[in-house]
Amino acid sequence: MSRDSLDDLNSQLLAFARERDWEQFHSPKNLSMALAGEAGELLEHFQWLSEEASSNLSAEKRDAVALELADILIYLIRLGERLDIDLVETAYRKMGINQARYPKEQVRGDARRADEYD
Amino acid sequence: MSRDSLDDLNSQLLAFARERDWEQFHSPKNLSMALAGEAGELLEHFQWLSEEASSNLSAEKRDAVALELADILIYLIRLGERLDIDLVETAYRKMGINQARYPKEQVRGDARRADEYD
Amino acid sequence: MSRDSLDDLNSQLLAFARERDWEQFHSPKNLSMALAGEAGELLEHFQWLSEEASSNLSAEKRDAVALELADILIYLIRLGERLDIDLVETAYRKMGINQARYPKEQVRGDARRADEYD
Amino acid sequence: MSRDSLDDLNSQLLAFARERDWEQFHSPKNLSMALAGEAGELLEHFQWLSEEASSNLSAEKRDAVALELADILIYLIRLGERLDIDLVETAYRKMGINQARYPKEQVRGDARRADEYD
Repeated sequence: MSRDSLDDLNSQLLAFARERDWEQFHSPKNLSMALAGEAGELLEHFQWLSEEASSNLSAEKRDAVALELADILIYLIRLGERLDIDLVETAYRKMGINQARYPKEQVRGDARRADEYD
Repeated sequence: MSRDSLDDLNSQLLAFARERDWEQFHSPKNLSMALAGEAGELLEHFQWLSEEASSNLSAEKRDAVALELADILIYLIRLGERLDIDLVETAYRKMGINQARYPKEQVRGDARRADEYD
Repeated sequence: MSRDSLDDLNSQLLAFARERDWEQFHSPKNLSMALAGEAGELLEHFQWLSEEASSNLSAEKRDAVALELADILIYLIRLGERLDIDLVETAYRKMGINQARYPKEQVRGDARRADEYD
Repeated sequence: MSRDSLDDLNSQLLAFARERDWEQFHSPKNLSMALAGEAGELLEHFQWLSEEASSNLSAEKRDAVALELADILIYLIRLGERLDIDLVETAYRKMGINQARYPKEQVRGDARRADEYD
């Protein structure tokens, strides 16, 4: 990870886990479950809202959603640390893959997944 | 978000969506589903592995996992942008909440969730 | 489980796992991941569709969705078997809880979650 | 669905939704989110447990897990109803597909996914 805010977060999250002797629980398998559990909580905020309402949250709801996003980021960073994966670098690599997979001329305004183009 | 690699990613992801006229699909509701879908793919890599094996992935599998983490980061950043949430700042705020909720003296080596302490 | 189609499915799924020596992988922890992974695949079918479009699937897409639902049912039955939980009986018990939690006079046409009523 | 306990549950769940005027919220898209949200809650029960511990739950925890499974079954049945999919019949069809995909001689004691066999 480039030296910036994600590195600082990573260091502090690692210290947080070590101070609690929690590294023993932080296998990639377990962290993937924790991340997916938080993703499930995120869904619950939106499941009965229209798409439009999901863009116009009350301040209270928006804050609750913000904290879910933070939980997801926290577990994502922990996974990156445990697996020695540079998240930002890989995100740029994935963007390159997506650019090749979804040429902008071909997919304009069309959200079908790549495997549905044939 | 502080001015660093997440900002740059955010700008490029926004441009990617706009060039494809995909902002119309990127409601927070839909993005939460896409993020949770990627979290599900992440689980599938680990579901039949022991915790130990999940820490010792083959190069090929580790790379596949890295790309899932990248997808999750990408949707997380898109959600932050759509909801005007600073992910890094909120992660620090959540860490503060966790520090109060799980005092290190009390939870050392114990992974029960906060609501199970009483 | 009452003696009916879920029992038959349960017996056949157990035989399927035993013939492959797969019971060793079917811990409740692992099965919960497999189930959530399938739930993630289900989301991916719907994530860019409007609610209305999600009710009007093409025959091909509807069949793909049907197979995801089947996968979820399969892992649900396996979890019930491993934990000795009667799914149907518990679903009736949960319906009773929901009836008390969401009195029909109070929640008519309102989908907020119970913890949002106060 | 064959005439048995799932049919009865289906009828009662439909009545429950109608009495609350909740069918308007029960698009397949929204129900898929609700199901995945419950799958996320299921994960949270198991995420820090060893596989072995996940097979030896306390009575209290086992009951909490049972209620999550019930929630998942409830949303699964609602999805089947909305999309006119016979869950049990499709589960048998999927079992047939799995039997062809994972011949018992070939996969004995090996949990890799089908796409990893080549």
